[in-house]
Amino acid sequence: MHFSDYLASCQQWANAGLSASLERANIHNDRIREAMAYSTLAGGKRVRPLLVLASCEALGGTAEQALPAACAIELIHTYSLIHDDLPAMDDDDLRRGRPTCHKAFDEATAILAGDALLTLAFEVVADHDQLPAEIRLKQSLALAKAAGCNGMIEGQARDMQATGRELTLDELKALHEHKTGALIRVACSMGALAANANPDQRAALEEYADAIGLAFQVQDDILDVTATAEEMGKTQGSDIAQGKNTYVSLLGLDAAKQEAQSLYHKALSALERVADEQQTLRLRELAAYIIHRNS
Amino acid sequence: MHFSDYLASCQQWANAGLSASLERANIHNDRIREAMAYSTLAGGKRVRPLLVLASCEALGGTAEQALPAACAIELIHTYSLIHDDLPAMDDDDLRRGRPTCHKAFDEATAILAGDALLTLAFEVVADHDQLPAEIRLKQSLALAKAAGCNGMIEGQARDMQATGRELTLDELKALHEHKTGALIRVACSMGALAANANPDQRAALEEYADAIGLAFQVQDDILDVTATAEEMGKTQGSDIAQGKNTYVSLLGLDAAKQEAQSLYHKALSALERVADEQQTLRLRELAAYIIHRNS
Repeated sequence: MHFSDYLASCQQWANAGLSASLERANIHNDRIREAMAYSTLAGGKRVRPLLVLASCEALGGTAEQALPAACAIELIHTYSLIHDDLPAMDDDDLRRGRPTCHKAFDEATAILAGDALLTLAFEVVADHDQLPAEIRLKQSLALAKAAGCNGMIEGQARDMQATGRELTLDELKALHEHKTGALIRVACSMGALAANANPDQRAALEEYADAIGLAFQVQDDILDVTATAEEMGKTQGSDIAQGKNTYVSLLGLDAAKQEAQSLYHKALSALERVADEQQTLRLRELAAYIIHRNS
Repeated sequence: MHFSDYLASCQQWANAGLSASLERANIHNDRIREAMAYSTLAGGKRVRPLLVLASCEALGGTAEQALPAACAIELIHTYSLIHDDLPAMDDDDLRRGRPTCHKAFDEATAILAGDALLTLAFEVVADHDQLPAEIRLKQSLALAKAAGCNGMIEGQARDMQATGRELTLDELKALHEHKTGALIRVACSMGALAANANPDQRAALEEYADAIGLAFQVQDDILDVTATAEEMGKTQGSDIAQGKNTYVSLLGLDAAKQEAQSLYHKALSALERVADEQQTLRLRELAAYIIHRNS
């Protein structure tokens, strides 16, 4: 199967899993149910579920074993987008070309739907029978730490506090490592746990995740200045024009490109400690996709 | 030990546990850490931790076994107060005589601190070694369901949607059963799990919890019209004057008092199926305290 077909089938798998999770939650309140579904089933690349699946399968695990973790992480990713979009936070009206949750519904509903998705993530991890209790508990703990006050939430706090201030390269890295890196890392980590990985394999997958998480962000900043408006769906150079801190503004374009390449090679080299080349094929393809994409 | 001393010692126990949970979380971001501590360590009666402790001890469990669940539930209670107080929700400026979290800090910080407390609750349940993984996982699942979209969050959604509308008695009961009842019930349930209760004991404790949870609310509504302003710290009859739906406005004062008594007896009778009279002493005292309090 070509990687693009694998990507599409993984998206379908994640979307079906998310629909089933919401269905199974049997949400009584119409408005909360609609708001949760509106944001959760709004498309999205489903990169995090793919990382759970590919990590689990690289170690001989099954898609059934990977599914609860994949859904839980995507529910948390969705809640974080809803809350980050709120007027008191980033105050965004549009998300994936549609009104944000608080615009389509109202602020109170958006806050509650976000809270509900975050809570549902822990229900989904705990409430399935594909994995032993010990492993589900480890997944739950890893997820709480990654999403929590020293993980993703610290990233959003750093982002809010960085507004209008020039960051150092180390500060910019720390921001991304928390804001997006923590969930990407725990995706690989939970996938590894689902496949009963040994600690070395889990650590190597986390190293891979850290490298591609950062590479994704560097490539985003490169595309902001090199891609056409049509490819990106936003004005070329708009991040730099808005005075945002980016790898390109701090390093320059050439050094940013070198950084992306170096992270790509770091990711591949970490995978050598996980499993053989055939087993890690999808993870290697994903790393390549991240730094070769043009949108 | 007199009940009032037991209550005070339980508050100290819960406060120390909450401080230790925040300390152990080692929160890097100053502002998020301060906001989380500000709201979590703001006093409060600590009724939910007491219910965890008394339920666990009634079944022969220890305070050490009860502590993680007690802290987790109080962290979730605190997050719910922070989010409920937000301008888009109940828009409250004061909580326990001090500025609400978004007033003392800012809205973005309050949203993030609430999210972080909710997430930390699941970390606290998963990350301790007093209980087998199987039990911690059951606690985590029970907590997610109680706090989630068909539990406490549904209660807040019902409350928002009830504004300016007259409720039936059944609707009012359903509102309270979700908004406050779900966490009270899971407090007893998690305490029972910590003591390795059998399913009958757990179910009986949940029945007790449902009765005292509702009794607490009925008594609140009675006190709104019978207690002096000095006792309650707010104007006598203010709920009724504001057109809020209360048990007294729907049932009348005498029938509300009878309802409180009947719930009290229901709670005591459920306890007979949990353990002997000596073991359930604190739970019986708590039921009496709830309907005899005058503030």
